[in-house]
Amino acid sequence: MDNCRVTFLPHDRVITVPEGESLLRAALEAGVHINASCGGEGVCGKCRILVEKGGVEGGISERLDKDDIEKGYRLACLTKVSGDVTVRIPLESSVDKSVMLTQVTPRRTAKIQHPDFESLKEKGLFIPPVEKVYLELPPPDPQNNMPDVTRLIEFLKVQANEHKLELTLPVIRKLPGVLRENDFKLTLTLVRPVRDDGKTLILDIQGGDVKDENYGVALDIGTTTIYGQLINLTTGECLAEAGDFNGQISYGEDVITRLIYAEKPGGLDKLQEVVVATINSVLKRIVTKSGIDPDFVSTITFSGNTTMTQLFLSVDPRNIRRAPYVPTATLYPPFRAATVGIELNDHVIALVYPQVSSFVGGDIVAGVMGSGMYRNEELTLFLDIGTNAELVVGNKDWLACTACSAGPAFEGGGIEFGMRAAKGAIEDFSIDPVTYEPMIFTIGDVSPKGICGSGLITMTAVMFEMGVINNRGKFNRDLDTPRIRKRNDVWEYVLAWKDRTQIDRDIALTEPDIDNLIRAKGAIYSGCLTLLEEVGLTMDMVEHIILAGGFGSYIDLEKAMTIGLLPEIDPDCVTFIGNGSLMGARMSSLTNRIRKDVVEVTKKMTNFELSETPSYMDNYVAAMFLPHTEIEKFPKLKKRMEERKKRL
Amino acid sequence: MDNCRVTFLPHDRVITVPEGESLLRAALEAGVHINASCGGEGVCGKCRILVEKGGVEGGISERLDKDDIEKGYRLACLTKVSGDVTVRIPLESSVDKSVMLTQVTPRRTAKIQHPDFESLKEKGLFIPPVEKVYLELPPPDPQNNMPDVTRLIEFLKVQANEHKLELTLPVIRKLPGVLRENDFKLTLTLVRPVRDDGKTLILDIQGGDVKDENYGVALDIGTTTIYGQLINLTTGECLAEAGDFNGQISYGEDVITRLIYAEKPGGLDKLQEVVVATINSVLKRIVTKSGIDPDFVSTITFSGNTTMTQLFLSVDPRNIRRAPYVPTATLYPPFRAATVGIELNDHVIALVYPQVSSFVGGDIVAGVMGSGMYRNEELTLFLDIGTNAELVVGNKDWLACTACSAGPAFEGGGIEFGMRAAKGAIEDFSIDPVTYEPMIFTIGDVSPKGICGSGLITMTAVMFEMGVINNRGKFNRDLDTPRIRKRNDVWEYVLAWKDRTQIDRDIALTEPDIDNLIRAKGAIYSGCLTLLEEVGLTMDMVEHIILAGGFGSYIDLEKAMTIGLLPEIDPDCVTFIGNGSLMGARMSSLTNRIRKDVVEVTKKMTNFELSETPSYMDNYVAAMFLPHTEIEKFPKLKKRMEERKKRL
Repeated sequence: MDNCRVTFLPHDRVITVPEGESLLRAALEAGVHINASCGGEGVCGKCRILVEKGGVEGGISERLDKDDIEKGYRLACLTKVSGDVTVRIPLESSVDKSVMLTQVTPRRTAKIQHPDFESLKEKGLFIPPVEKVYLELPPPDPQNNMPDVTRLIEFLKVQANEHKLELTLPVIRKLPGVLRENDFKLTLTLVRPVRDDGKTLILDIQGGDVKDENYGVALDIGTTTIYGQLINLTTGECLAEAGDFNGQISYGEDVITRLIYAEKPGGLDKLQEVVVATINSVLKRIVTKSGIDPDFVSTITFSGNTTMTQLFLSVDPRNIRRAPYVPTATLYPPFRAATVGIELNDHVIALVYPQVSSFVGGDIVAGVMGSGMYRNEELTLFLDIGTNAELVVGNKDWLACTACSAGPAFEGGGIEFGMRAAKGAIEDFSIDPVTYEPMIFTIGDVSPKGICGSGLITMTAVMFEMGVINNRGKFNRDLDTPRIRKRNDVWEYVLAWKDRTQIDRDIALTEPDIDNLIRAKGAIYSGCLTLLEEVGLTMDMVEHIILAGGFGSYIDLEKAMTIGLLPEIDPDCVTFIGNGSLMGARMSSLTNRIRKDVVEVTKKMTNFELSETPSYMDNYVAAMFLPHTEIEKFPKLKKRMEERKKRL
Repeated sequence: MDNCRVTFLPHDRVITVPEGESLLRAALEAGVHINASCGGEGVCGKCRILVEKGGVEGGISERLDKDDIEKGYRLACLTKVSGDVTVRIPLESSVDKSVMLTQVTPRRTAKIQHPDFESLKEKGLFIPPVEKVYLELPPPDPQNNMPDVTRLIEFLKVQANEHKLELTLPVIRKLPGVLRENDFKLTLTLVRPVRDDGKTLILDIQGGDVKDENYGVALDIGTTTIYGQLINLTTGECLAEAGDFNGQISYGEDVITRLIYAEKPGGLDKLQEVVVATINSVLKRIVTKSGIDPDFVSTITFSGNTTMTQLFLSVDPRNIRRAPYVPTATLYPPFRAATVGIELNDHVIALVYPQVSSFVGGDIVAGVMGSGMYRNEELTLFLDIGTNAELVVGNKDWLACTACSAGPAFEGGGIEFGMRAAKGAIEDFSIDPVTYEPMIFTIGDVSPKGICGSGLITMTAVMFEMGVINNRGKFNRDLDTPRIRKRNDVWEYVLAWKDRTQIDRDIALTEPDIDNLIRAKGAIYSGCLTLLEEVGLTMDMVEHIILAGGFGSYIDLEKAMTIGLLPEIDPDCVTFIGNGSLMGARMSSLTNRIRKDVVEVTKKMTNFELSETPSYMDNYVAAMFLPHTEIEKFPKLKKRMEERKKRL
């Protein structure tokens, strides 16, 4: 078998692979990223590449236009190398890093809830679980030559009222040198126990008085992105933050494809290794940005969904995606971060947010803790919307949760011109009621490249209210506009003609796209409803909605209610918390209270499997309309629709 | 600078070293052992080697005979290589492995106390700290899909009444596979907490029912030798034992030289590495001998003196030998054995016997625990005699301890023809009252090679009672025998003429040898006396003597009393326990009681520093006679001496 040279443009990266290798795998090995949501099975159609020169076989799919095929477009995952070849990765097939920047400043602001650090301080709860204590010990003399460790422990008992202490071999190893090189003056890093009868761990010792140099890291391991914050544990301040794409993306864009990859030989190790590499690069950036000495970082708190957590900890996640969907653990013990490859000091203690179930993970628990929902009186609905939506309802007395698969529509997946909420994504839209010409707005105000999830919601809501589509999401075939057309047997509305786009193709919204959105919003709405019904409540009893997640922050609330994604509620009763996972990780670096509460909260969060709840399917079918079979559930919209009809 | 080839015989090992390198260091690098008690400073005279061919410089010392120097003998530590050279290591300069074999069957048996396993069983205390429990879990189903860990914990609570459990990441990682590959049947390895309010640790899990396959290792880290026993934790049986020389011997024969070596750059790491290598070789041998599957070893208990313990754990021991003699720690936390390089399964938990002070270490604590002394009513004197003697007095209510430096005389050090208690060592002796010709007995009944500690005691006692030496250890110059002679200005008694020896030299006992013995025994006797006086007691109140250590087992009790090493006491009230350190390590593998008690016992053991106790020097001076200034303290001997005088 011959070897072939594959050149990837615009990266200009070259790799030699054996004949017959798939282009997707060649790209992976060359370190070139190509979107591939389906993990390389040819069904998502994301991995479009342009063969500019040379020999390939296959790669043709119904996911590609005839025109495109003629131009040389192929699906990388289905294309085999048969000779030296030059391949170009089109703009829309590689990830645009601008998504990292836009997520921190949500476009639409309703009420944004920031980490509630002030109220922590007011309530006297600013007690970081990792504290520093400065001590001056009397040096030994012949009448008092107790061992160094005994001297330390005795002194801590008598002078600092510290009891029930435990310490580790590395600290014992460090002690004699630190004491003698620093005139018996030292700073201890103490980890407070979670249970009141537990022991305080002496995590580390350092020479001299460095008690104010005490830092922690909050780290959110998202399926797509990894965010870290460097927290000053003395002031509570966030000194630096940074994010990056989870390196696992190259092995599958979503949880399911990662789970499949993890089962391949060496797959779990590989995924663990690459997520740790991303985490380490984020850590390096926040440490550098903050200007602190990394020797003074003592703790790191991780939160992620169940799959991300298990992959990160090398805990085989194969049972997560198989009925009856059993995760390995909910609570993980604290561990030394270095043992999983984290490049911080050896002693740094890592804490991982607990999980509730295979589909309600540590990111959601962190959101519930960080938002304070678990301490609130009012009936709250917590929603983290993505490919999988996680829902929590309850208050300080009880909590119920579930997850439902919304499909990738909200993240631009399964949408013909779908893309993430990055530069060039159409995010806002209106339509001329006479000509049906559109007005589009993109993120970054550049030529359009595709449609992001929030744009999709807005378009669908606007078109529905304007009568361009009906309550089943079908285009009104009677309207006189060239923008509504049938192409490849599919009805669509052209949002931008190709000469106005960045991708040299007409960008359109199709009926299957709208159908995908309806399924997605139907899944979420009916999930919420079913969860409430299971605990004997109804949707109109919800007093507060918390929207978490990058996507949540982008939603136009009114439009989301129009399509029936959210119940109609006073927008003032909706809070955006942004990255709830990161917020929770940060909050639990600042108060031991959260670490104490989280074990109980996790136990309290009753998990419902919608697939095991018979009413879910009925609720789902009823929600497969715009906004819902029963428009009475959306009285404001009903009124607007009636008024519009009167005007016509 | 040229390189030179050095060939070591009889090993026939060759190494190339730069010109000017010392022969001792060349031997070290070549992996050839040469005794060097002084760590290579030219003062002990142990490292005699014979230059058979080639170029050397220096190496001549007053420690060598003129005859020997003419023959080509040199001290390796003082000899520099100046060209290619062939060197022979004489028999007495390399360690004789037969010492390993003889130590297990003491020559003289008074009452030998074996590990008191039966009484453990009778008292219901046979509760190994590491237990195995077999469980059959119900497999998950859609109505019951709790996480694997939760399932395990819940089931342990309900079915096995196990509460307060904790587990580690590696166990969590193993769990999903073990459950599903074994039909949800598994065996847990549980570590019981030391404190009643502590948590039970799930140390490991294994598929199926292997609850009877539960093994532990007891390991004594001696300065000279390392012994291991493989214990069946289900039956209490010792399945195999083995010993080997501590590899650190090549870096210094005793504690002080090792402490000095440890301060050299890389020294601590090197000593840790070589002791672990010896331990691993011992482990391999006992695992192989026992025929068990090493996967079923779950725990290892180490005991050693304070220096050995700190070197093994990489805890810098530099302060042990510097006033005010501060060890780093007494209690060490349990740790995973693999983290210090022990080649057993990753999960194996290591426990280390606590220390009392720099000079009363875990070996002594283990002896106190293993012998049961700490539970006895009677006033007991525990003695571990070696270069450093450790002394403990007390009973179940109180314990006091100290250590004194006896010098190396008991181990054959500082004695002209001294050697360890190995094959060829003169161990018994009598003298013809008329001709003063000797009758000597050697270990192994071979031609003599030297004098071991017990032989030295016997000779001195016999000669004293026969009037060959006086109560200050000086030879009676008036006796008519060629065996008493002055050589190199030193008086000596020739035990064996050179043609009858293995070493082709006259073997003699010299006045400086006897003087060394008197200093050694005086240090121990006065140590015991001072310790008793400090707690308001006298020597005659002692009801029981426990002799620990290899050397202890060899002592002829009557002779030891004759020279004033031990107080006169009914021999039935003396017990030999052999290797008390190993016994203690073994016993604490079998009963959690010892692990619970040892913390309290260690705290209870009041440590006295003899150097800080003014009466010690007076007691020492008074003990510098045979048997003592006050012969009234030895009434039986006094009577025998008076009777002998009458007979003459």
